Amino acid sequence: MLQRLQQMTLGLGAREEAERQEHDKMPKPPLKVSIIGSGNWGCTAGILVAENCAEKPKLFKEEVLMWVHEEEVEGRKLTEIMNTDHENVKYLPGVKLPKNIVAESDLATACKGADVLIFVVPHQFLEGLLPTIKENMAKNAIAISLIKGIDFDESGIVLVSDVIRKGLGIEVSALMGANVASEIADGDFAEATIGGPAGHARVLQEVFHRPKFHVTTVRDSDAVELCGALKNIVALGAGFCDGLGYGNNAKAAIIRIGLLEIGRFIELRSGEFPTEILLQSCGAADLITTCYGGRNRKCAEAFVAGSKNWEEIEADLLGGQKLQGTLTCAEVFKVLAAEFPKGNADDHFPLFCNIHRIAFEGAKPETIFDGLSKSEKMLEEPGVPLARSML
Amino acid sequence: MLQRLQQMTLGLGAREEAERQEHDKMPKPPLKVSIIGSGNWGCTAGILVAENCAEKPKLFKEEVLMWVHEEEVEGRKLTEIMNTDHENVKYLPGVKLPKNIVAESDLATACKGADVLIFVVPHQFLEGLLPTIKENMAKNAIAISLIKGIDFDESGIVLVSDVIRKGLGIEVSALMGANVASEIADGDFAEATIGGPAGHARVLQEVFHRPKFHVTTVRDSDAVELCGALKNIVALGAGFCDGLGYGNNAKAAIIRIGLLEIGRFIELRSGEFPTEILLQSCGAADLITTCYGGRNRKCAEAFVAGSKNWEEIEADLLGGQKLQGTLTCAEVFKVLAAEFPKGNADDHFPLFCNIHRIAFEGAKPETIFDGLSKSEKMLEEPGVPLARSML
Repeated sequence: MLQRLQQMTLGLGAREEAERQEHDKMPKPPLKVSIIGSGNWGCTAGILVAENCAEKPKLFKEEVLMWVHEEEVEGRKLTEIMNTDHENVKYLPGVKLPKNIVAESDLATACKGADVLIFVVPHQFLEGLLPTIKENMAKNAIAISLIKGIDFDESGIVLVSDVIRKGLGIEVSALMGANVASEIADGDFAEATIGGPAGHARVLQEVFHRPKFHVTTVRDSDAVELCGALKNIVALGAGFCDGLGYGNNAKAAIIRIGLLEIGRFIELRSGEFPTEILLQSCGAADLITTCYGGRNRKCAEAFVAGSKNWEEIEADLLGGQKLQGTLTCAEVFKVLAAEFPKGNADDHFPLFCNIHRIAFEGAKPETIFDGLSKSEKMLEEPGVPLARSML
Repeated sequence: MLQRLQQMTLGLGAREEAERQEHDKMPKPPLKVSIIGSGNWGCTAGILVAENCAEKPKLFKEEVLMWVHEEEVEGRKLTEIMNTDHENVKYLPGVKLPKNIVAESDLATACKGADVLIFVVPHQFLEGLLPTIKENMAKNAIAISLIKGIDFDESGIVLVSDVIRKGLGIEVSALMGANVASEIADGDFAEATIGGPAGHARVLQEVFHRPKFHVTTVRDSDAVELCGALKNIVALGAGFCDGLGYGNNAKAAIIRIGLLEIGRFIELRSGEFPTEILLQSCGAADLITTCYGGRNRKCAEAFVAGSKNWEEIEADLLGGQKLQGTLTCAEVFKVLAAEFPKGNADDHFPLFCNIHRIAFEGAKPETIFDGLSKSEKMLEEPGVPLARSML
């Protein structure tokens, strides 16, 4: 144990050294900030960013370029409307944008010399944009993803930030939290978590933190991003509870156990249970919001109530858009099946497995609480040692 | 640091030794279980206990005595109704009680030779009962408190378990969690946390754990009990949010920051931030339930909406019963004022202080988010070291 501590101490020293090196490679202020994306969340986050850039001239250039996928709205170009009327009438109608947001439809122009790149485009458009961005961004650019959701390929999970990392060859941070965009646009209070290398996260905190949008920082960007994706599986569980008419105790239990399983899934990848991150906005707070509001909860409630399958529910309630929760649930289950080839994923992820069985294997929604308690299993084994019973 | 680790290692060894000694002092099965109290929560918990006692003859005696404060209901004695009709028609109407619950109005008879004492009486009656219980209980009796709330005297906080400890001269555990009694009586799923010495908690887990009532155990009973009391302060904050019409982001932030301040308050007493306990049902789960349902949230919402003071709201909404949240808020604020004589409690407990100012000092409810962010303060200080900015 002493030896392990010594290693930890050495590890800390190495991390500090890495941070010092990271600091030397940081872009020099005032930094040029570009936002790649102009949807509902992009414009809302853009307001926070543009206010900070206007208020902190030593740190940031005032003008914030926003790349807009050009389209016509009532005979006018969307970029022209945004730059004249300072409103995104299509995706954030009724909310004034700061005048230092400049809409730009040419991607190369939008990210020319950018020191800080904020990614907030729909997931599926991302990869095609990266070569142009790489050619035009500043040499030591800092990038951050606000994109929710994860992808999967044959080898398992592909994080959105990994796609950007690979495409641009730079570090990428992530911002997640209990962030319903319309509430932030209305000026309500919210919190968020930025995960990324310490020096980057510090700069990005200056980019996003506002009097009513509090930003904390942690080092593990993968964990932050995974919280944002895995919460949607838990929200299905919360929706099943609501559909069954269960009360507050049951829903709070789903949220609590779900939070622990999110932590365990992150631990599978990183080797460390991310307690601190679960207590951040990207962890517990975002999960609560998603389990009390949100489309995944709503569709799962409908799944219990009716006799419809997921495609029909998506058609009815989401106008045919795909649900993140079911997609993530199915893919995460594949990862678990590969991680636990003996079929014992249930021992470590009983809630995720129950949700998968209900969503895809015809199990009854009432089975959602079956076998959730580790302690229950131990009670069945006589003579279990005291220490183990405390787990 | 190495030295500290060695001390910790020694500390662990000493704890294991203490547990071995504790084990030797445990009462020998089959254990006689008595419940002191027969209200709504007492009868609900009694059902779980009685089912376990009937199912585990090696561990427990089947008969569970329940002390009932005798009263007349429609011309019949309540104990007689409970023992004949197996229903507490006054406090848990419509729910059948297991036949092995035996109602007893004589306290000495009810706890004669009891090995396990479950306390679930209203707080204010407790002290007067203890001398009789001490005289009649078994020598190595184990006690647990299910009583919510805390008390205060000139010297600060007095836990309910401390009152029992002092009165009986034995260790006392605590059970808390997201436990709306009516939902448990209806057979819905719920979780709870028992805090107490390891050997006691293990036995008490056998007393309470059921297929639909999952019990986990931790060692720190004070922390478990404090979670159950301090959550009511946070619920006032959640109610202020609701009264102001704020959305999900803001409420999730209140819950998250509230959970951290509950942890810090426990740390003030114990010297250790109770991360693990905050992730138990007594922590995050109970807090969520209380901030979405519950009387403290409801009354705080009314406080924002109208021009009524707390007494008027209690009269209107609670039939004159006292609100736990405002009482706890006022007393906890006194403790903080004493702990931080320089008036800087705000630096460590900004949310608790804001809630106190709104509830008792005429501050506007809109100020609830003022100064909540530690990071905000640091952003104001130029040149703050990297490590500190990560806090």
